[in-house]
Amino acid sequence: MSSLTMVRRVTVVTHNRLEEMLVKEFARLGSKGYTAMDCRGQGEHELLQDAFSTATRVRLETIVQPDVADAIMAFLGQEQFAHQPIMACVETVEVPASMKC
Amino acid sequence: MSSLTMVRRVTVVTHNRLEEMLVKEFARLGSKGYTAMDCRGQGEHELLQDAFSTATRVRLETIVQPDVADAIMAFLGQEQFAHQPIMACVETVEVPASMKC
Amino acid sequence: MSSLTMVRRVTVVTHNRLEEMLVKEFARLGSKGYTAMDCRGQGEHELLQDAFSTATRVRLETIVQPDVADAIMAFLGQEQFAHQPIMACVETVEVPASMKC
Repeated sequence: MSSLTMVRRVTVVTHNRLEEMLVKEFARLGSKGYTAMDCRGQGEHELLQDAFSTATRVRLETIVQPDVADAIMAFLGQEQFAHQPIMACVETVEVPASMKC
Repeated sequence: MSSLTMVRRVTVVTHNRLEEMLVKEFARLGSKGYTAMDCRGQGEHELLQDAFSTATRVRLETIVQPDVADAIMAFLGQEQFAHQPIMACVETVEVPASMKC
Repeated sequence: MSSLTMVRRVTVVTHNRLEEMLVKEFARLGSKGYTAMDCRGQGEHELLQDAFSTATRVRLETIVQPDVADAIMAFLGQEQFAHQPIMACVETVEVPASMKC
């Protein structure tokens, strides 16, 4: 039977102009893959800054080892991102032991 | 280094005709933003009611304080939604302390 | 007021050629519904095998009872999937007691 391993899933929702930078940063910090989906929505920054913008939103996910998740969240928690239209969260998920991430 | 704060992520999958009502209700209950993605799929209600429908599904997410999540889940748990094509769940996620939600 | 029930959410990201097979298998193992979203991204298998491929990725979700989640994860943890472009994870989520899954 399969056994499950605890890892971490980081989700980021942001403007698509930040996608390439973030994906490169995830890889540099140890992520081995990511998933991206176009989406729409509204957050506090959009209400204030982008009422007339047509910027596309993107939702990024990466499933990584806990230490990589810590590094990504520390990167995203930097002061420079506090005023950007970016939302990030992380939670623990379980993956089959046979899957590498 | 960054510190993380525990908040709640509510996910709702429903027909797009309910999107506007739900997003307004989330805001009224204290949500400061949401993400929406078009999706497809099948649930019990679709099998029964919508075999020939072309209704579009939508997946909504909102990351909120625990008390706001409780209010949203209480709203979605009402009897009136038990017979609607709507699936909702909530889980704890961690966000950078610098991000407001 | 509503009460919440603990269930499990399985997420799978894979090539769309595997979608139909997986959705049928989920149903056979007891899942009562699923959500599918087209997405893009990159993983280790893509880097090695699909650099010039235009295959579409899909992200599948199904919210199920814990024993159904165990069966799905055991299915996905089989040796045959270790070399496929497939990522799967599972976590506990809470749903309104009035929603069946």
